[in-house]
Amino acid sequence: MPIDLDAIRAAHDRIRPHIHRTPVLTCARLSAECGGKIFFKCENLQKIGAFKARGATNAVFALSEVAALRGVVTHSSGNHGAAVARAAKLRGIPAHIVMPSNSAKPKIRAVEAYGGKITLCEPTQAARETACNALLEKTLGTLIHPFEDELVMAGQGTAAIELLEDVPDLDLILAPVGGGGLLSGTAIAAKALRPAIKIIGTEPAGADDAARSFRAHQRIPLTHVDTIADGLRTTIGELNFDIVQHHVDDIVTVSEAGIIAAMRLIWEAVKIIVEPSAAVPYAAILERRFDPAHQRIGLILSGGNVDLDKLPWMER
Amino acid sequence: MPIDLDAIRAAHDRIRPHIHRTPVLTCARLSAECGGKIFFKCENLQKIGAFKARGATNAVFALSEVAALRGVVTHSSGNHGAAVARAAKLRGIPAHIVMPSNSAKPKIRAVEAYGGKITLCEPTQAARETACNALLEKTLGTLIHPFEDELVMAGQGTAAIELLEDVPDLDLILAPVGGGGLLSGTAIAAKALRPAIKIIGTEPAGADDAARSFRAHQRIPLTHVDTIADGLRTTIGELNFDIVQHHVDDIVTVSEAGIIAAMRLIWEAVKIIVEPSAAVPYAAILERRFDPAHQRIGLILSGGNVDLDKLPWMER
Repeated sequence: MPIDLDAIRAAHDRIRPHIHRTPVLTCARLSAECGGKIFFKCENLQKIGAFKARGATNAVFALSEVAALRGVVTHSSGNHGAAVARAAKLRGIPAHIVMPSNSAKPKIRAVEAYGGKITLCEPTQAARETACNALLEKTLGTLIHPFEDELVMAGQGTAAIELLEDVPDLDLILAPVGGGGLLSGTAIAAKALRPAIKIIGTEPAGADDAARSFRAHQRIPLTHVDTIADGLRTTIGELNFDIVQHHVDDIVTVSEAGIIAAMRLIWEAVKIIVEPSAAVPYAAILERRFDPAHQRIGLILSGGNVDLDKLPWMER
Repeated sequence: MPIDLDAIRAAHDRIRPHIHRTPVLTCARLSAECGGKIFFKCENLQKIGAFKARGATNAVFALSEVAALRGVVTHSSGNHGAAVARAAKLRGIPAHIVMPSNSAKPKIRAVEAYGGKITLCEPTQAARETACNALLEKTLGTLIHPFEDELVMAGQGTAAIELLEDVPDLDLILAPVGGGGLLSGTAIAAKALRPAIKIIGTEPAGADDAARSFRAHQRIPLTHVDTIADGLRTTIGELNFDIVQHHVDDIVTVSEAGIIAAMRLIWEAVKIIVEPSAAVPYAAILERRFDPAHQRIGLILSGGNVDLDKLPWMER
């Protein structure tokens, strides 16, 4: 087993001084609509506006003094890049971030604001990896992979520890799944703390590799992606899929219309900004991809970084 | 003195089961911009999306059994109406809400959703009062005035108690001022708990009656109103002005451009939805209406009810 509750607790101790303890919010209207009770774990209110601050900070602060001196390298379309840049800045070491040229502008600005050194590349997985490898060769730094990294997964799992501290008697936890870092960390932490809990991964139908892989019992890479949820356009990692197969109860998919409706309802009723990827779990409730009635549902809102000039309900 | 800390503590005990303990959020970016440290008391995340839930709930639950049977009556352009309707529903009594015909649609829908009986009137103070008096005569119910009411003021002051419990060492508190219910309750509570604290009221320049009244040492009603901050288009109440004169240190005004910029920055950086009125105190920081450097600033975000189809930065 690659990570366990002890690794996640160690991550929590390591990152606690550098992250927010995010609030858990409830909303009478959205709970009533589904007949259950929803507890929103607000990682959109986390440092850098996303749960990614947890995993990146854990990986950066776990580096030995010698390794840290050479700096860190990663590739990211956004939140993970900002998270690595911020963690490196806090530790006083250089961070090189490879970003696809079609990344959202606020995400590029965020990486710059934390002092990350950006290398733009073509928006393909191959181009990302080529640019990343070149930087690793040049700097001899450490790769902080966005999700296929045990320290990153352990860091992401710390949100579930906090959620279960605040609301111990949850029946299930919903999390979005892209590369699978959040979902795998959440599943390990939550199942260790509360074995009876159900964990459901939620994914856009337009990037449904994890759902298809889960049903096929083998990892099936994405070939075609079409979703507004820019944080979830990634194929699930091998390490992550292995954990998901053993510790996650189901993976369900949602429509694009459902994601947009869910995003708007969270803005309107909960009064917080969530990005499309973060709205995917609530879309699964709205579209009744499982029965939420009488369930106490922990829902991880993964991030809140959006371009306020481009809101999906205004474009359509 | 109309209300004191004991009255506010009693209000807090009365309303606690019916309201959210709202979180206090910080934001490294916005604090760094001003050189101080800002603690956002998130009443936008309060029940009905505004601090108004506090005062209305206190007034409704303080009614005697006999008075409660006849129901309650109020006039409001929005948040107070929803707050009274919700509190009345919780207590199981009727609520009649007079609303100006130009009220924002989401605010009308919210009152309806809580079962409030709406009477629309012309958007003038005189028309509101006429309609309200007619309902009071007809129902023999109790008027819950939006701000000139000791129980309402005491309820609004409970946010400051919570804020100072969470962050005891504040140097100052900023609150918006419309009718003055929030500002007067806040000032009484905060000065009693921490006599050295400064209280600054913040107001749109386009509805600056409280600032002008404060300087003139007498209440000067609004004659002309021009502001996007729809919650603050009211002349300060007499009771409220009396308290403000004695317990508030200053009242500053901000521009419309400042309000819109502040609103957008809070959405973007803090990741929460605030309505224009709630952005007014942060506009006072942005526009440097006082020196925020090295200050620990409590800032009450009054509400988050906005029409997501009409965002001010998209209209201009």
